[in-house]
Amino acid sequence: MSTDNLRVAVVGAGQMGADHVRRITAKISNADVVAIVEPDQGRAAAAAALAPGAIAAASFDEALDATAIDAVIIATPGFLHEPILVTALERGLMVLCEKPLTTLAEDSLRIVELEQQHASRPVIQVGFMRRFDAGYKELLALRESGANGALLALHHAHRNPTTPPNYGEDMLIKDSVIHEIDIIPFLTGEPIMSVEVKKPRSNSLAPAGLPEPQFVLFTTESGVLAIVEISVNVQFGYQVTTEAVFESGVAYIGRETSQTVVSAGLSAQPITPSYKERFSAAYDEEVQRWVDAARGGGIDGPSAWDGYTASVVAEVAVRAQQTGALEPVEYAVTKPTFYDEVFAVAAGDRA
Amino acid sequence: MSTDNLRVAVVGAGQMGADHVRRITAKISNADVVAIVEPDQGRAAAAAALAPGAIAAASFDEALDATAIDAVIIATPGFLHEPILVTALERGLMVLCEKPLTTLAEDSLRIVELEQQHASRPVIQVGFMRRFDAGYKELLALRESGANGALLALHHAHRNPTTPPNYGEDMLIKDSVIHEIDIIPFLTGEPIMSVEVKKPRSNSLAPAGLPEPQFVLFTTESGVLAIVEISVNVQFGYQVTTEAVFESGVAYIGRETSQTVVSAGLSAQPITPSYKERFSAAYDEEVQRWVDAARGGGIDGPSAWDGYTASVVAEVAVRAQQTGALEPVEYAVTKPTFYDEVFAVAAGDRA
Amino acid sequence: MSTDNLRVAVVGAGQMGADHVRRITAKISNADVVAIVEPDQGRAAAAAALAPGAIAAASFDEALDATAIDAVIIATPGFLHEPILVTALERGLMVLCEKPLTTLAEDSLRIVELEQQHASRPVIQVGFMRRFDAGYKELLALRESGANGALLALHHAHRNPTTPPNYGEDMLIKDSVIHEIDIIPFLTGEPIMSVEVKKPRSNSLAPAGLPEPQFVLFTTESGVLAIVEISVNVQFGYQVTTEAVFESGVAYIGRETSQTVVSAGLSAQPITPSYKERFSAAYDEEVQRWVDAARGGGIDGPSAWDGYTASVVAEVAVRAQQTGALEPVEYAVTKPTFYDEVFAVAAGDRA
Amino acid sequence: MSTDNLRVAVVGAGQMGADHVRRITAKISNADVVAIVEPDQGRAAAAAALAPGAIAAASFDEALDATAIDAVIIATPGFLHEPILVTALERGLMVLCEKPLTTLAEDSLRIVELEQQHASRPVIQVGFMRRFDAGYKELLALRESGANGALLALHHAHRNPTTPPNYGEDMLIKDSVIHEIDIIPFLTGEPIMSVEVKKPRSNSLAPAGLPEPQFVLFTTESGVLAIVEISVNVQFGYQVTTEAVFESGVAYIGRETSQTVVSAGLSAQPITPSYKERFSAAYDEEVQRWVDAARGGGIDGPSAWDGYTASVVAEVAVRAQQTGALEPVEYAVTKPTFYDEVFAVAAGDRA
Repeated sequence: MSTDNLRVAVVGAGQMGADHVRRITAKISNADVVAIVEPDQGRAAAAAALAPGAIAAASFDEALDATAIDAVIIATPGFLHEPILVTALERGLMVLCEKPLTTLAEDSLRIVELEQQHASRPVIQVGFMRRFDAGYKELLALRESGANGALLALHHAHRNPTTPPNYGEDMLIKDSVIHEIDIIPFLTGEPIMSVEVKKPRSNSLAPAGLPEPQFVLFTTESGVLAIVEISVNVQFGYQVTTEAVFESGVAYIGRETSQTVVSAGLSAQPITPSYKERFSAAYDEEVQRWVDAARGGGIDGPSAWDGYTASVVAEVAVRAQQTGALEPVEYAVTKPTFYDEVFAVAAGDRA
Repeated sequence: MSTDNLRVAVVGAGQMGADHVRRITAKISNADVVAIVEPDQGRAAAAAALAPGAIAAASFDEALDATAIDAVIIATPGFLHEPILVTALERGLMVLCEKPLTTLAEDSLRIVELEQQHASRPVIQVGFMRRFDAGYKELLALRESGANGALLALHHAHRNPTTPPNYGEDMLIKDSVIHEIDIIPFLTGEPIMSVEVKKPRSNSLAPAGLPEPQFVLFTTESGVLAIVEISVNVQFGYQVTTEAVFESGVAYIGRETSQTVVSAGLSAQPITPSYKERFSAAYDEEVQRWVDAARGGGIDGPSAWDGYTASVVAEVAVRAQQTGALEPVEYAVTKPTFYDEVFAVAAGDRA
Repeated sequence: MSTDNLRVAVVGAGQMGADHVRRITAKISNADVVAIVEPDQGRAAAAAALAPGAIAAASFDEALDATAIDAVIIATPGFLHEPILVTALERGLMVLCEKPLTTLAEDSLRIVELEQQHASRPVIQVGFMRRFDAGYKELLALRESGANGALLALHHAHRNPTTPPNYGEDMLIKDSVIHEIDIIPFLTGEPIMSVEVKKPRSNSLAPAGLPEPQFVLFTTESGVLAIVEISVNVQFGYQVTTEAVFESGVAYIGRETSQTVVSAGLSAQPITPSYKERFSAAYDEEVQRWVDAARGGGIDGPSAWDGYTASVVAEVAVRAQQTGALEPVEYAVTKPTFYDEVFAVAAGDRA
Repeated sequence: MSTDNLRVAVVGAGQMGADHVRRITAKISNADVVAIVEPDQGRAAAAAALAPGAIAAASFDEALDATAIDAVIIATPGFLHEPILVTALERGLMVLCEKPLTTLAEDSLRIVELEQQHASRPVIQVGFMRRFDAGYKELLALRESGANGALLALHHAHRNPTTPPNYGEDMLIKDSVIHEIDIIPFLTGEPIMSVEVKKPRSNSLAPAGLPEPQFVLFTTESGVLAIVEISVNVQFGYQVTTEAVFESGVAYIGRETSQTVVSAGLSAQPITPSYKERFSAAYDEEVQRWVDAARGGGIDGPSAWDGYTASVVAEVAVRAQQTGALEPVEYAVTKPTFYDEVFAVAAGDRA
């Protein structure tokens, strides 16, 4: 391991955490995993085997006592994020926190406030990886270019093959649509101001009691209407597409094809089986850019503020699922100038 | 002209009427245009020049007195349809009536009742040509096959390059979305039961006072949610697409490509400039099949009942534009068995 | 039947002939089938049933004696074409002759000479239907526009699902590549000047003794290289594509898609199962335009001269199959001015 | 820098060398650039600025004296490769050598022999990056699966926007088609046994004296025919596609699309402007996998043997350009078992 490299602790060694350990060890430049924090000893050992030289610790404090750490990737279940974030801020560490920032908007707001007290500029990046997807970056660049006039509306399709056990109706929002809740402000440059949920005829392949697909209608400050179809038992694979309606043009992303095979009466392209294949390159770019920025003391992606606003919108969207009414979104505070220096990821020279 | 051929009067020699004269004269088997009814003498003469042997008449009655007529194509403005329909029914003629059947739902209902009095089976076909489009037929066949489970939702995009003068907000429904109002029951096999209209940020390229695009949300009897994006000043061409969400699959139509040209940094396919190119083959098939059916005393496409229900839904949709609320649809009568014998156009052996 | 309509005799009531009877009776304007000439009584009766009013005759002479005939469609096996062509020329009839014009180039040349003696302008059209395909018309229009500079090379793929019994190696040329032999001069505006055949590893799914696929390399007068892959046992369907290499651009046709269905891990478009679906619209346009032209005493498509040159090239290509060498093409006569007035079918206002 | 990381010297700091310095420094895990060898002081300084901690040296020997080096990337002009390869073999270094291995086949053969003397297994990897392209890996996996029967033929299109100054006719082979010369044995699993070159009408946009496009026809041991269209002044961008003809199926790669934008009458996808965008991900994967293998003392990609055979075929292809005849390919020696342990890169678990 290099003395120059970013020394990263990965907290949580479930699937996402283990993926991050593997990525930093095998694909990413200028970073080393120095500690893996995981109370489950089997998981901890498995992840440590991926990163020679990393220590395994049962708690974040134990890891901090045992080795020098520059930065932390938080990949535990969401309800455990807050204390790790607080410790990281107190210790002056750089952070990449998987979504959600915290499970409650009020907790996220507290993190936003704490970050401003402890740091002179944002140090927490939230793991909304879609901002690093080539398609979304191209779409943002197209809007910013003005080539087709103003953006008026967005059609999003977000489709998962199946749901894991215990996937409740609110997880349609909190686990899935949360990505569109982040990407809509990213694409439009505006906050979401209202949410409404429509529930069509349900998919009989979904578990009993899970009414899906659902259509979530978001409206941004200037009136852009973003309609999100969330379907989570489509069986056929994993598909995330967006159709953007501009004043004099339309753009599509997520329809990108790879090898075409003509056989048995069909001309066919494969559909990615899961989010891993669909967003693999986005994850790699997200982490490399975070490492590069963290070595300089900053972030290069969505901030804690973006994590906070996503939490606010998600809470309103869950309420809208229940009421069926158009629910307005209110933010407790206006965006602090502290977060102004963080630029969104666009397709231009920043790509 | 042949004594066996269907002797057709075309009433109205504007663009649509002239197109029908040209089509029957130049492309369609087993029919002749024998009369053109048009009060404007210039238009009448121009249309008559396309159909050697056809007489020009200033009124439908004048034409009926002058020559033997088997069938009539009604291509006048919608508010003039009703008396021609009544005369045709009284005279026992076969009818192809361009949409709308009549401008008011109550008038359409009267035509439905009159048809049942005068005829032993449906003799009026309404000119919803999309049912004859290859894509829509394939989509219907896919639903009927059950290969991907039940149909749950539909995303429709309906985009026009520009609007003619005097195109008011209600024409978004009456002139444009009226086609989806017909095609949604065709695809789902169910009536529409509610309508809601959403108005996002408006296109600055639209004429002053025309708030568009709009999103019209229809729900059918079993809960299929059909979302129609209607945009009428997109500049780039004419585009009609549908994305159908089934339980275990998704199908797209209207993205069909033709020649691809790679040049100057782009791989590009042309977009049809207007509805004429987009639905040219559908119009040809519609008219040929109507001619074939009319020679046998029947119809082969949407009936007066379909024209009536479309009028009902359109009236509710215009109300929904004004109220912003979810508006239920109510039909004054249940579907008479008289209309049961008319089958929708599917992709199978009827194609 | 109409006295104005073109009175057509169809000679040969096999699959192609029966298709023409059906087409003219059910889809084409301004023509009637008045006679069906077919020695096989069963076939003759089946075809006659499609065309009410048509007589069935065992020979062309018998039909000519029995009823008034304006035009003839020749759909017999190729080796029977010549005497029917001669009779038609002597009687002053208009002709649509399925390919080949005749089986031997020298016989085709005699027809070309006879046509010039009997008629003041071309009256024989040869059934190369690809010239009426939308893709080929667009490609010709692109070349004529000069938008991407000169045409330099063509890649053709011509794939059939399986071969019928008794399909010999020379039929790869005479039955299949014959279509490219016609379309290459159509697209380039130049005659073919040499042919060479390459035989790669053979398809084990082909009948024993049929070495296929084969690659046929044609060079035109200015040096355009056209490479034709002919594969006739691909199993998966029927596919005809062309990739045209211009100086500053590339164009593709035949990749056009229809409905896309996403299911079970694939995004798929159907492949046409046979030439009938692939070229259905081209056949319809070919016949309607021939009828329209024939009513005025002319043709509107490939002439007997095109039939002759195709026969010459096909004979050389069969020789090239045997020798493996680059074989030059020589035409016995230069193109008579008699054939100059016949224009190729392009995409512009002639479409 | 880490003591565990692979210590890499980059020899040659032109565009390709500088790209490798940037890649290893910014994107690749477990490797550091420790030395940059470049006689041009300006270039050397520019490259060194990209890699903090790397020394700049005027010669490879100077670098070896100055710092500890595990591996070398050779990115000088081809005619300078041989002495660096020899030194690397003598010093026991791991090598990634940009194509060509050497400019003459006889020199490549000497390197192959020397490698067997100095090493117990292959230590030289040649920079044919296409083997790491997702499309080519999928195509190889498809062939290996046997799903569509045997591979019979390949259509390759290789198109460059423009040529640099002093690009002679032989560079069509040596600089451009050399990639297909490597990828054809990779895809077929067989050596190339003959070459023939066809020269169609030339592109007037090419420099005077450069007759292009050209078509190079390769035949492999079992008879697979691979036709390569090489065009180097197409203006529109950079395009590399392959169409593989199997017994019962066809596969296409290189047609992959990204964002589609509909505007001004066209539905368009961008074409990559240069090889950098087209093969960016392939380069990254090539280098990361080479680093991973080199740390274990091996290679993971094309070997010196592949470099040798490519040189042999390229020499024959240049002769075929001159003679116009079908030229057989002869290899001076049979493949040593020494090279058997190196596996080709396929799409499966090795991807």
